[in-house]
Amino acid sequence: MTHEQEETNGLGGLCGWESGPDPAHHAHFLRSALELLVDKAVLQSTDRNSRVVEWVQPDDLKKRLHLTLEDDPVTQGDLLKYLDEVIRYSVKTGHPYFINQLFSSLDVYGLVGQWVTDALNPSVYTYEVAPVFTLMEFEVLSEMAKHVGYEEHDGLFSPGGSISNMYGMLLARYYRFPEIKKQGITGLGRLVAFTSIDAHYSVVKSAITLGLGSDNLILVNVDENGRMDVNHLKECITKAREEGGVPFIVCATAGTTVLGAYDPIERVSQVCQIEGLWLHVDAAWGGGALLSPLHKHKLRGIHRADSITWNPHKLLASPQQCSVFLTRHVGLLKDCNSASAAYLFQRDKFYDTSYDTGDKHLQCGRRADVLKFWTMWKAKGTKGLTKHIEKLFTMSKLFADKIRSRDGFTLLLEPECTNVCFWYAPPSLRGHEDNPDYTTRLHAVAPRIKERMVKEGTMMITYQPLRERHNFFRLVLQNSQVNEDDIDYFVRQIEIHGSDL
Amino acid sequence: MTHEQEETNGLGGLCGWESGPDPAHHAHFLRSALELLVDKAVLQSTDRNSRVVEWVQPDDLKKRLHLTLEDDPVTQGDLLKYLDEVIRYSVKTGHPYFINQLFSSLDVYGLVGQWVTDALNPSVYTYEVAPVFTLMEFEVLSEMAKHVGYEEHDGLFSPGGSISNMYGMLLARYYRFPEIKKQGITGLGRLVAFTSIDAHYSVVKSAITLGLGSDNLILVNVDENGRMDVNHLKECITKAREEGGVPFIVCATAGTTVLGAYDPIERVSQVCQIEGLWLHVDAAWGGGALLSPLHKHKLRGIHRADSITWNPHKLLASPQQCSVFLTRHVGLLKDCNSASAAYLFQRDKFYDTSYDTGDKHLQCGRRADVLKFWTMWKAKGTKGLTKHIEKLFTMSKLFADKIRSRDGFTLLLEPECTNVCFWYAPPSLRGHEDNPDYTTRLHAVAPRIKERMVKEGTMMITYQPLRERHNFFRLVLQNSQVNEDDIDYFVRQIEIHGSDL
Repeated sequence: MTHEQEETNGLGGLCGWESGPDPAHHAHFLRSALELLVDKAVLQSTDRNSRVVEWVQPDDLKKRLHLTLEDDPVTQGDLLKYLDEVIRYSVKTGHPYFINQLFSSLDVYGLVGQWVTDALNPSVYTYEVAPVFTLMEFEVLSEMAKHVGYEEHDGLFSPGGSISNMYGMLLARYYRFPEIKKQGITGLGRLVAFTSIDAHYSVVKSAITLGLGSDNLILVNVDENGRMDVNHLKECITKAREEGGVPFIVCATAGTTVLGAYDPIERVSQVCQIEGLWLHVDAAWGGGALLSPLHKHKLRGIHRADSITWNPHKLLASPQQCSVFLTRHVGLLKDCNSASAAYLFQRDKFYDTSYDTGDKHLQCGRRADVLKFWTMWKAKGTKGLTKHIEKLFTMSKLFADKIRSRDGFTLLLEPECTNVCFWYAPPSLRGHEDNPDYTTRLHAVAPRIKERMVKEGTMMITYQPLRERHNFFRLVLQNSQVNEDDIDYFVRQIEIHGSDL
Repeated sequence: MTHEQEETNGLGGLCGWESGPDPAHHAHFLRSALELLVDKAVLQSTDRNSRVVEWVQPDDLKKRLHLTLEDDPVTQGDLLKYLDEVIRYSVKTGHPYFINQLFSSLDVYGLVGQWVTDALNPSVYTYEVAPVFTLMEFEVLSEMAKHVGYEEHDGLFSPGGSISNMYGMLLARYYRFPEIKKQGITGLGRLVAFTSIDAHYSVVKSAITLGLGSDNLILVNVDENGRMDVNHLKECITKAREEGGVPFIVCATAGTTVLGAYDPIERVSQVCQIEGLWLHVDAAWGGGALLSPLHKHKLRGIHRADSITWNPHKLLASPQQCSVFLTRHVGLLKDCNSASAAYLFQRDKFYDTSYDTGDKHLQCGRRADVLKFWTMWKAKGTKGLTKHIEKLFTMSKLFADKIRSRDGFTLLLEPECTNVCFWYAPPSLRGHEDNPDYTTRLHAVAPRIKERMVKEGTMMITYQPLRERHNFFRLVLQNSQVNEDDIDYFVRQIEIHGSDL
């Protein structure tokens, strides 16, 4: 379609302010927007020949975008131009060379599921307004619980792993002290929680939010692979009791954020059983391995967990956000969180109101995060999800193998999940490992290489320090389109951008 | 395109399991899915000639849908059929006759903004991965803060009004007792919060979650219009102090859920100032009135609030979810909630990391809820949003006027927001108001009419009891496509379905 045709078809007209679709006014705009979406936001933005990002500093980007909200409306054509700018300057998180975060890729089936959700715009709290989504949540939660090995389960979708982890701590607190719901925690003694020093920071945020305070979240040591040290856990529990604290929960991690370590869940669960503590497993990142016969042993014992966080938007590559909270305590979510709002959860409805699931949530209105993941699962079958997961692990191993003996690269540890952590030392640093400023200089390498890559838009990978370890790179895979050529590309990119440092 | 063509174009092929788009395999599927979306989920589902819902009881619906997740993949054609079923049996919340909840309508610009967001699949925590969305959040929060009247502000987007209200209580607690972050609330005395008896139930959920306990949320009386009784508030505060409690926050409401009442914010703020309490205003529902010169007086004094919840997905008809939390205490969100994760918020980045806003949130990964609303605002201009809001108020008033003197209808009160609460008494009940079983029989009318409407799919409106008031209907408008004909239709539908009861 030519530009002239567009204008005669009405994109030159003002947008109009009423809040619903008018076929005469919107049909052409909608279809033009969809062309833009498919061509630029989907296909071009995931094409290996395109840049991952067109980097612009914040102050400059403000000038390039038409962000300012004004009094007057714009034309449909101008609106499309602004959306085109949004696409252009956004990071292409679906690009195979975006391996920067614990989410990536753009799954077509997931995306279509999400688009359908948006068009239906449901809120999942009553069967009355979300019949399909309600039943679909039951189905997906039930299948996920099967893979966990739960005989009975309850659960919900939450807006992210941090909130799911908070649900775990919240349930644990209520399970131990149901009077908390009415009376609060004042007067109950000093509640103490335990997690490893490598656990996700949302565990400390939960401890703060729930009124425990960060001092009362005890950070347990990890072994050289980043797994919780179970002996130290026992010591910490004993010490906390001696100091007058009231231990009530251990948060283990299946797939730590940085190292990708799996805590020894079975051994931790034995400690929890003996000590009478709730076991929450944060499998937000590593939970996807449950779908692989080859890798699920890493989560052995997870069926003993009282509650679990598992995010399909991570290893399973569902669009954001899709986070699941599961518990084997049926009914406890509702007991803990219900407020029985009479205006929403009427009891004189003409259907079985046990399908009105909203009152077990902290949210009231709630987006449907289930359809995108259900669409993917339906499309690929469980077998397809397994293939996806196993390819990720295979490619991560391949990357580790490629850099293992390559000049300048040093693996921090053998990967358990799809995280591969490594240092890259440019030629100028090699052989100087004993120099007093070596670590300081090495520390500066990763940020510099990252900066160059981002400015060229060739690749995005992350780096971070960890305790005594200076900055190191971390490759993370969730995109099963990434193949051996891409793995070679990643290695070469680091060398290209780092060899002269 | 004919069915035969579809098949030869590949919709008969299996979906494939890799997690990224492959133009050869997906382009036709994508375009077919988009046709389905536009025709059925957008245009047909908002057409007045279509049903609002095709009602099916849960057990029957399970049989009609292909919900079961299986081992094997399906064909692209089958997947589209299943999505078609999802659309068919979902409630059409964008339909003009869906006036059942505090959200409705399907704004084309909002929807397109949402679809673009999905395709870009960002997580808004660092500028590095979400440059456009980060700047856009600043712009929208800043414009909203202007309409509040804040001279300075800080804020964030949260997954719904309930979580936004929790942010308010969380900040209030930290502001009063910053030591809480490390030490928790044990030992600080019994913290007490205040809200009206008609406040949203998320306030009690917040009190429970934050460890205060529901007993320590004092419910203040309301006047006959549902507004907080400021004298009773003062008495409650005094009484709480006398009983050894530590008052720290008042949550006022601008637009209560059921009656649509606006608490007298200015007077409440004076009490808060005198008593040294944080004032949070839950304007999730009624905040949209700030965009109308005619109606913003209802929120007079809101600029004095310490924090505010305001959901564009309610009166402003943005797609779900779009909830904003604002505070006039710059920097407090970060002080209260930060955990300074070194793997995400690196300080040695090559740009100004004050643009990395994630650490002030409870969430880590976070969907971008801003683009859909920004797209609407950009499309319509502030003037368009004003027209939208004012039409809603006008149509609500029109509905109230129409039923005011109509046989069988009784207004509960004059509407302040777009809620219109009313009883409908069928002819058989009229004139029997003094019978002892009158209220019991009236109580049964609304559920019965609702059931009939839903089963026919002609309209969805909600009802509820409130304290001593038996079940009454509540019309709520957020859809500015609703016109006078629709208003007449609503009245007639109630009569048609209720006249023989």
